[in-house]
Order: sequence, then structure tokens, then C-alpha cells
Amino acid sequence: MKGNIVVGQSGGPTAVINSSVAGVYAAAKKLGVKKVYGMVHGIQGFLADKLCDLDEYLDNETGVELLKRTPSAFLGSCRFKMPKIEGHEDVYEKVFEIMEKHDIECLFYTGGNDSMDTVKMLSDYAAAHNKPQRFMGVPKTIDNDLPITDHCPGYGSAAKYIATSMKEVIRDNSSFGVEKPTVLIVEIMGRNAGWLTAAAALAKDVDCEGADAIYLPERTFDVDAFMAKVKDLAARKSSVVIAVSEGIKVADGRYVCELANANVAVDAFGHKQMSGMAAYLAQAVAAETGLKTRAIEFSTLQRAATHLASLTDINEAFQVGHDAVLAAEDGKTGMMITLDRNGDDPYQCGTSAYDIHASANVERAVPDEWITEDGCGLNEGYEKYARPLIMGELQPLFVNGTPRHLVRK
Amino acid sequence: MKGNIVVGQSGGPTAVINSSVAGVYAAAKKLGVKKVYGMVHGIQGFLADKLCDLDEYLDNETGVELLKRTPSAFLGSCRFKMPKIEGHEDVYEKVFEIMEKHDIECLFYTGGNDSMDTVKMLSDYAAAHNKPQRFMGVPKTIDNDLPITDHCPGYGSAAKYIATSMKEVIRDNSSFGVEKPTVLIVEIMGRNAGWLTAAAALAKDVDCEGADAIYLPERTFDVDAFMAKVKDLAARKSSVVIAVSEGIKVADGRYVCELANANVAVDAFGHKQMSGMAAYLAQAVAAETGLKTRAIEFSTLQRAATHLASLTDINEAFQVGHDAVLAAEDGKTGMMITLDRNGDDPYQCGTSAYDIHASANVERAVPDEWITEDGCGLNEGYEKYARPLIMGELQPLFVNGTPRHLVRK
Repeated sequence: MKGNIVVGQSGGPTAVINSSVAGVYAAAKKLGVKKVYGMVHGIQGFLADKLCDLDEYLDNETGVELLKRTPSAFLGSCRFKMPKIEGHEDVYEKVFEIMEKHDIECLFYTGGNDSMDTVKMLSDYAAAHNKPQRFMGVPKTIDNDLPITDHCPGYGSAAKYIATSMKEVIRDNSSFGVEKPTVLIVEIMGRNAGWLTAAAALAKDVDCEGADAIYLPERTFDVDAFMAKVKDLAARKSSVVIAVSEGIKVADGRYVCELANANVAVDAFGHKQMSGMAAYLAQAVAAETGLKTRAIEFSTLQRAATHLASLTDINEAFQVGHDAVLAAEDGKTGMMITLDRNGDDPYQCGTSAYDIHASANVERAVPDEWITEDGCGLNEGYEKYARPLIMGELQPLFVNGTPRHLVRK
Repeated sequence: MKGNIVVGQSGGPTAVINSSVAGVYAAAKKLGVKKVYGMVHGIQGFLADKLCDLDEYLDNETGVELLKRTPSAFLGSCRFKMPKIEGHEDVYEKVFEIMEKHDIECLFYTGGNDSMDTVKMLSDYAAAHNKPQRFMGVPKTIDNDLPITDHCPGYGSAAKYIATSMKEVIRDNSSFGVEKPTVLIVEIMGRNAGWLTAAAALAKDVDCEGADAIYLPERTFDVDAFMAKVKDLAARKSSVVIAVSEGIKVADGRYVCELANANVAVDAFGHKQMSGMAAYLAQAVAAETGLKTRAIEFSTLQRAATHLASLTDINEAFQVGHDAVLAAEDGKTGMMITLDRNGDDPYQCGTSAYDIHASANVERAVPDEWITEDGCGLNEGYEKYARPLIMGELQPLFVNGTPRHLVRK
């Protein structure tokens, strides 16, 4: 590559989104790229010509290692969606104008479905207008709902956080229990796909009984059946722990949290802001059974707890960034790097470049065949798929008792 | 010691309560004590003669190290309060009957104020009835509200979890912010003392701006002043993060969460079950300012996240258990082991045995002089006190991607 490159981060952060930036940087430097720019707050900041020079942070002994250990979007993220090309050519021209200004040959964009759309549209515009610039997508999302790729960087670390935290709260919840059981409802992220909630199943091991029931948005939620299940469990066990997705819906299509709250906020993409599901269910169980209940939301720590990131995930996030640069060097554009599993035992995974145009912006759900017949558990199919993704740790650099992060000035 | 001993755990667990059991076990074994029993579910289980033999779990190469890395109460906890002696002599006699049955010479009880009361009353009963058995208290509480001791085992690990998680959610919250700021309200445990919430101040470092405001229960909460503060911060910053104690009260004495919920559950000790404070404030801010808000409760992970425990705390929890046995060997009874700080830089801490009768069951608050003048921050006095308590880590033993725990059969 003769020119410079730029990398940007978009959408909700993950624990390892910065490893992908590190991978882009490392590969570019190996190829002798002169300047690796970062977009400050994604394509939105880029349109305002807000760039930083990654050498400033990474061209030293510890920068890359600290970046890998830094949660959230180091460069700043955005939720800006590129408009349709037709009628908004000025916005597209602006992108190319800024790329030309900084001699940027290739743009790398980490994100989920919406960000891959941005890559697709920019490469379409370049093709239609004979522009030489190239655009590559680097997948990331804790939700693991991107099609084509075996899994998404970001998912493994979120799953490791969820599995570990589930083990810890299951232990905590079982500390009492000589008398009446305590029912703990844990709310896990994931709007339409149950991948994150499914990770609660990974808490089960020889030292942990696991969650007693796991409710995914892939199945219609039946409040009565749920209540019967809780009563049955409480009759047999001194500690009952249930994982529910924030996205579970009842038969008429309403989210369970909408049963409680008439007002549900909506974000820039028209997605409803979920929350309060576990609290609602815990109150309902307490009212119905008289049992002590507690609700926990794992909240944004699911995507921010880099101190507990999966090493497999960190390495794969790095790899997809790295390989996106190699693909661009090969002249590719309008593609995203996918993770391709080559084996489960031992786990092996490679990458390839996939034409974004060949895949629709669809959310991939947890496969039916991995959900147990009663609809509230995962079977060994999921275990085989997900366990390798949470393996390994990268010890944070603790300074003054907390993990040190790399932060933009 | 010629006879056997028993150790029990009481009250809400901490991340290191099991290290105290390990300390009791290790010291007893050094002294040649034959049997170290564990009470299954505290004094309540003990009264039903539910004991386990700790050799079964700890007399091997890895048991003690796994126990130190296991959250919650390994032995099982209880919230049972010993009744007044007068009129309930049968309950007391039962304790001594079971001690005699198993040739138990000394009883060790880990817990907070209520558990120290149990130790006091049992030793009083022994003194009044000329019984030779001894009773020692081993302090533990994440709340850090015990008097006399410089700090409580359990607090340092909870503080480390809070400081680390605050850093992570502050990074997460600042990932957006090119347009309107997001206001994040984080709810932290601590009913009447603000020690845990104060730990949010430890997030501040060269790589983190820290929480923008910290509201402790030591100060009356003024909703209008809070709202003015948030508006001022939001006018100047793209990310606003505020830590609030679950125990903050308005001028008329009501908890802030009671402003929203008429029904607040009450536990066995008459303590109100707090929750929903952050959600209430986040909604109030959103309604008042139109800003995007988010609420996070750190929940029971504050006391259960042993994967992030402070090594200083683990070692001190071990030490108080260990030294309780040495004190009992010396013939002491009706005492609790305290941590006595001998220096801040370098931090040094020893232990002594303190007569429980000399201290009242009072909750120690965060000292006035460590709270900033505006009432919503901590100064360097707190930093000097608390920073040493979160130092150091004990790497979990990761198996299958999650920390391995030691669990009773």
C-alpha cells in the first residue's frame, strides 16, 4: 500500500474492539504503511475531519499491549448511519474528500450489521464513481448475531464475563437457603438473539450446578409456564437462579419489560432500549409465591469488563483487524473478514474475506437444535460451539490496584 | 488446644470470607488441633448439629488455595440472630450440648456486628454458667462499618471490584458523546455507611477522570441540588457518571428509592431491602433534562466477584482467622480480631484481640473530614486510607474458561 489508512469504531463497544484496532495497526506497520489514522467517533467524526495519528499512542513498547487491555472504543464510537446514496451524494463525496486530503487509500470499519452496511455503501459509491479508495469491514459485536462468520469478536469475552459472573452469583445465592429458597433472576443483554443469554449455560461445570433455567428471545415467553417452573424449582431447591434475555417477548409480541413499563425509549436506529425485565419478573415471583427474590442486570459490564476478556477473543479480534489489512493490500474492497472454524477439538479458526453484498443485514439467532426441548436450556451443541470462545485470559496490567487503560488525550 | 474447634460463617458473604476459614484451618492444623469442623449454615445449622469436617476439603494440595479463590460462604451462611439469653436458655444450652458432643473447645464466627453480638452473648453465657468453651469473632463485612478495627476484611475486595468496574463503565460511557452527553447513574451497596460508594473515588487515576459526583448516605440527599449538579456537568462534559449509595435519604428520612416504590421489603434483621435507586434517578434525570440516561446496579457482584479480589484483603482475611485461633489458644474468649494499621506508606497492618463487650453494635460511617465540602466527593484522606486495601491480585485458577471454585458436597 502506498497511501495511508484509517480505522474507525462504530456501534456499542466490546471488551476487545480495541484489539482489532491494534491488529489493523500492527499489520499496516508490517506492510510499511506510513500513517495509520484513527477516526475520532467513527464515520461521524471522520466527516468532521476528526482524526488522530495512532503512532502517537502505539509506537512505543507498551502501547499495543495496553490497547488490547482497554475496554470500550479507544477511538470513540458513534451511532451514525450513512444515509442512502441517492440524494445524499454530498455526504459520500465528503468522505472521499477527507480520504484524499489525508492520502488515505483504505478505510477499515469495526462494527456490527449497521457498520457493515456503511462499508458496503461506501464501496458501492466508489465503484459507481470510479474512485480507487477501498473499504473493509472488521466484524465486532457482543451480540454474535452477524451472519456468515462462525462467531463475532467481542462475543467470547462477553460470554466469559457472563459465565464467570453467573458462577459467582450462583455461589452467592446459595450461601443461605436453610429455610425458604431465594429466587435470583439475572437479566442478560441481547435484543433479538439469545447468544449472550445462552452463555449463562457455560457456568455449569463440576463445581457449579449452573443456571436452573435460561430464557432466550428465540422462544416465546409464557409468564404462566415461567411461574410454574419457578414454583417447581423452589419446591426442590434452596437456591433458584434463572437467566433471562432482555429481549424475551410474550405471545402478542410485547417485550416482557413492556408489561411493566408503558414507556420504552428508542435509540437512533429505532431499537427499543430494554431494561427492568429481571426486576419485573422478580417482583412478579415474589408477589405470586411469597419467596424472597432478587434481580440482577449484568448491564454494560458485559461489554466493558476487559479485565476478564477471553484471550481467544482478544487474539481473534486482533486477527480480523490484521487480516483486513492484508486483504486490502490484495486489492479487496467492500468485504468483511469472517472467522471460519476449522475444528472443535482442538479448536481451530482461520479467517477469510467475504463480500458484504452477498449477505443481507439479518440477525442470526441461536439455532433451534441447540435449545433444549422445554425451551429453557442449551444443549451440548451450544457447549461445543461456545466453550472454546471463552478460553484463556490476558492478565490486566494492574497499577494502583486497578487495570491500567490506554486513553486518548 | 486439646479439643476440637468449629468455624462458622454468618451474614452476607464477601469475596474473601472463605480466606478467613482457610486461616482458621491453617492455624489450627499448625497447633495440632485434631478436628476443624465447619458449621453448615452458621449457628442456625450448628443448632441442628449440621457440621462438616474441613479435612475432607482442605487436607490436600490444592484445597486451601481453591478455598481462597471461592466466593460466597463455602460453609453456607445464615441470618439467624441468637435470642436474648433470658427466657431462651434452652437455645444456649443446645449450643453447648453440641459443642460437648463433638469435643469442641472453641467456636469461631465470621461476620459483622450481628455476628459479633452472637459471640458476645455466647461468651457471656459461658462465663455466667462456668462453662470452659471459648468464643472468638472474626470480622468480615463488605460494608466496612464495624467499629474499632481499622477496616474489615471483605471491604478491600469489594472496593477493588467497584473501582475497576467504575473505570470500565466510565470508559464505556465515554465511547459515544459527539452529540448529547449520556448520564450514567451507578448504584452501589451500603445501607447506612458510604464506604462502598466511596470506593468509586478509587477509579480516578491518570488514565481515568473518575466519577463526576459521589453521593454517600452520610449526607442528606437533595434531589434539586443533584439535578442542578447533573445539568451543570452535562453542559460541560460529553459523559457524566455519577455514583450513588443505595442508602441515600432525603431530608424527611425516606430513602430515595422510597420516593418511587411505596413497598420496600424488610429482611430478618428489620433492614430494608434497597434497590432501584439508580433507575429512579436515571428516569428523573431523563424526564427533567431530555438527556439519554442509563442506570447500573453493581448488585451482589460487589461481594461475590472473587475473581477480582484484592490480595491484601485475601491475606488479611486469612490473617484474622489465623490470629483468632492463636488468641483462643492463649485462652482468650468473647473477643474479636481487629486489623490495626501501623503505616500508610509503605502500608503495614497488624492484628490484635479486642474485647467485644467494650464496643457497642454501632455502624461506623465515613469520617466527615474525608468528604469534600460540596458533599459529593472524597478527598485525599480517603484515598490514603483505602488505596492500600485494594492492592494486589490473586490470579484465579481458570478451568474451562471460568474460575474454579471449591464447593461443599
